Amino acid sequence: MSNDHRPPEGRHDERAFVNSADSHVVEPLDLWQERLPARLRDRAPRRIEQDGRWVFLVEGMAPKKMGSPSDDESGDADGAGHFRAGGFDPDLRVGDLDEDGVWGEVLYPTIALFGFLIPDPELRWACARAYNDWLAETFASASKRFAGAAMIPVHEVATAVDEIERVAGLGLRSVMLPMHPPPDRPYNLDVYDPIWAAAQDHGFPVSFHVGTGASPWTERGPGGAVINYVEVGLGAQRNLAYLAASGVLERFPELHVVMVECGAGWLAWVLERMDEAFEEHASWVKPKLAAKPSDYVRRQGHVTFGNDASGVHNRHFTGVEPLLWASDYPHPEGTWPHTRETIARIFADVAPSEQAAIVGGTAASLYGFER
Amino acid sequence: MSNDHRPPEGRHDERAFVNSADSHVVEPLDLWQERLPARLRDRAPRRIEQDGRWVFLVEGMAPKKMGSPSDDESGDADGAGHFRAGGFDPDLRVGDLDEDGVWGEVLYPTIALFGFLIPDPELRWACARAYNDWLAETFASASKRFAGAAMIPVHEVATAVDEIERVAGLGLRSVMLPMHPPPDRPYNLDVYDPIWAAAQDHGFPVSFHVGTGASPWTERGPGGAVINYVEVGLGAQRNLAYLAASGVLERFPELHVVMVECGAGWLAWVLERMDEAFEEHASWVKPKLAAKPSDYVRRQGHVTFGNDASGVHNRHFTGVEPLLWASDYPHPEGTWPHTRETIARIFADVAPSEQAAIVGGTAASLYGFER
Repeated sequence: MSNDHRPPEGRHDERAFVNSADSHVVEPLDLWQERLPARLRDRAPRRIEQDGRWVFLVEGMAPKKMGSPSDDESGDADGAGHFRAGGFDPDLRVGDLDEDGVWGEVLYPTIALFGFLIPDPELRWACARAYNDWLAETFASASKRFAGAAMIPVHEVATAVDEIERVAGLGLRSVMLPMHPPPDRPYNLDVYDPIWAAAQDHGFPVSFHVGTGASPWTERGPGGAVINYVEVGLGAQRNLAYLAASGVLERFPELHVVMVECGAGWLAWVLERMDEAFEEHASWVKPKLAAKPSDYVRRQGHVTFGNDASGVHNRHFTGVEPLLWASDYPHPEGTWPHTRETIARIFADVAPSEQAAIVGGTAASLYGFER
Repeated sequence: MSNDHRPPEGRHDERAFVNSADSHVVEPLDLWQERLPARLRDRAPRRIEQDGRWVFLVEGMAPKKMGSPSDDESGDADGAGHFRAGGFDPDLRVGDLDEDGVWGEVLYPTIALFGFLIPDPELRWACARAYNDWLAETFASASKRFAGAAMIPVHEVATAVDEIERVAGLGLRSVMLPMHPPPDRPYNLDVYDPIWAAAQDHGFPVSFHVGTGASPWTERGPGGAVINYVEVGLGAQRNLAYLAASGVLERFPELHVVMVECGAGWLAWVLERMDEAFEEHASWVKPKLAAKPSDYVRRQGHVTFGNDASGVHNRHFTGVEPLLWASDYPHPEGTWPHTRETIARIFADVAPSEQAAIVGGTAASLYGFER
């Protein structure tokens, strides 16, 4: 069993208890064709051949190019290069983690990141449940080192609450909501209170992965690939402001919210900016929170980062608890298989206790990682 | 003449040469009724009484509440409290600057910030020219300590180039473009090259003030005042990515671009984020810049900040040249009349040469401030 693996470093140094707050599974391409109710299977997200090329279809989205059938079929589902087999095989994955010096991982999807965009509620929910089932069976049940984040669409709040209850029973340990909610129902509205309450009751951190709930490819002109990568990070900044300034974090004081794959270097600015408006524009501020917006984020908000050092450099402004290191395994922009070198570089001047919290200790508290 | 004033501190310490890269004038409420061509005067931006309240009208925008006629009429044009008379009187203004330890200022508008949103091109251009004329006559001609930023709409590129030529002759020293360009013509398109070329030729920094070109009040629900203040800062981050990643800064290597009133604490993150996409997603990156996107920003990009310290803390990541301190006089969220205390706090641990560059030296180079 994967459970028997031990981290390669000793337990005496808490800095060696490294947990990635953002890693990805790679779903089998036929997951939804295999698992959807029979009446929905011909509408399942799936790979097809079109004009001599593989494309991946998700209802309501433009077909996504995946290379040609003559290519290796190892699962280039998001066009980001060929993924490690650890993306779908938990035992191989544990081997990769051990080699890289990582103990636990919070698991996010690859293809299912786009499932929030499926317009039809029945199909959207069926796809979410199928993904959550697969994630629980494949990873959550394989090792306590895997904390799965269930996919929870938010258009239908009561259904979302039901699914949170259901995935708690499956052994998943977190819920993932779309970074971009439906445009007519932003996250500052109290319609979502039952979702926050359910997550809080189960001790589930609520996470928002960049690029979910709206197309992450809004700019297709010059510089688009770079611009869009910045833009999805702006979504995380906006989201944290919505949740703090509107009073969601105040009303649900045990709720933790996590912005995922957005980096951390902007956090000090968002905190300062929110507080400046809260104090200097006080006559327009509603609701009047009992504390500054930044106080709620320091207590209940978190952001994940990998290679970028400025967020750690700013910990004096943000506090240490909001910062969660992440490998982004198996993505090319992540730290795998060079996690040790990356951590050594980023934390060169950081106190051991602070490093321990950021690279794994805080994630262990949030997601229940134990060695 | 205002020119005769001397900064209160001696010339021996360059840290005492403080120049604000973002300050505001407050236009007379009848500026456009006085200065527009006769045929447009009844459509001029103006204050009227409506249902017993003052409102300010700008064609194409919702009326803006300004208090009741029984209030003091000193010019509460943006609802942000009563402004100092230095907003429209250059001699009183110089007195305020001297008391606060500030030498030069880059001047941005108050009411005219919303002039970019006037839908009709003829009226929009007439309003811009009237503002530019007033700014030049009132402030640019009064003292070399005032560097006026001309308002330049961008819908009609040839007209914009003509206006840049015209304001150069009026003694204005910078141009202000809308932060949000027309939605169908983002700043990564080469249609704007004549504007960049004209600004570069005149040595005019091109600035983008937060909240211009699109309504800055997008969120009106819970937390809106705080959320919107964050959101306008996101516009600055996006804009810098557009200008760097698309190659604008590469094609115009002497052009300087300035994001105004957005704070600086996010800049390290934008630089790291752009470079990560540029390097790790290289196969999708167009154009292939000769250097990393961050290199162009370090050379040609700038951001203004006032009270917030995290941007200065990150200067190791961003370089010192992009950072421009600003008072935001006479706004309540600015540093006036406590500039000395604010600067002492923010720069407590900063080398004197770095402080000198950030509080005034770089602005002096960009905008031509001389003592």
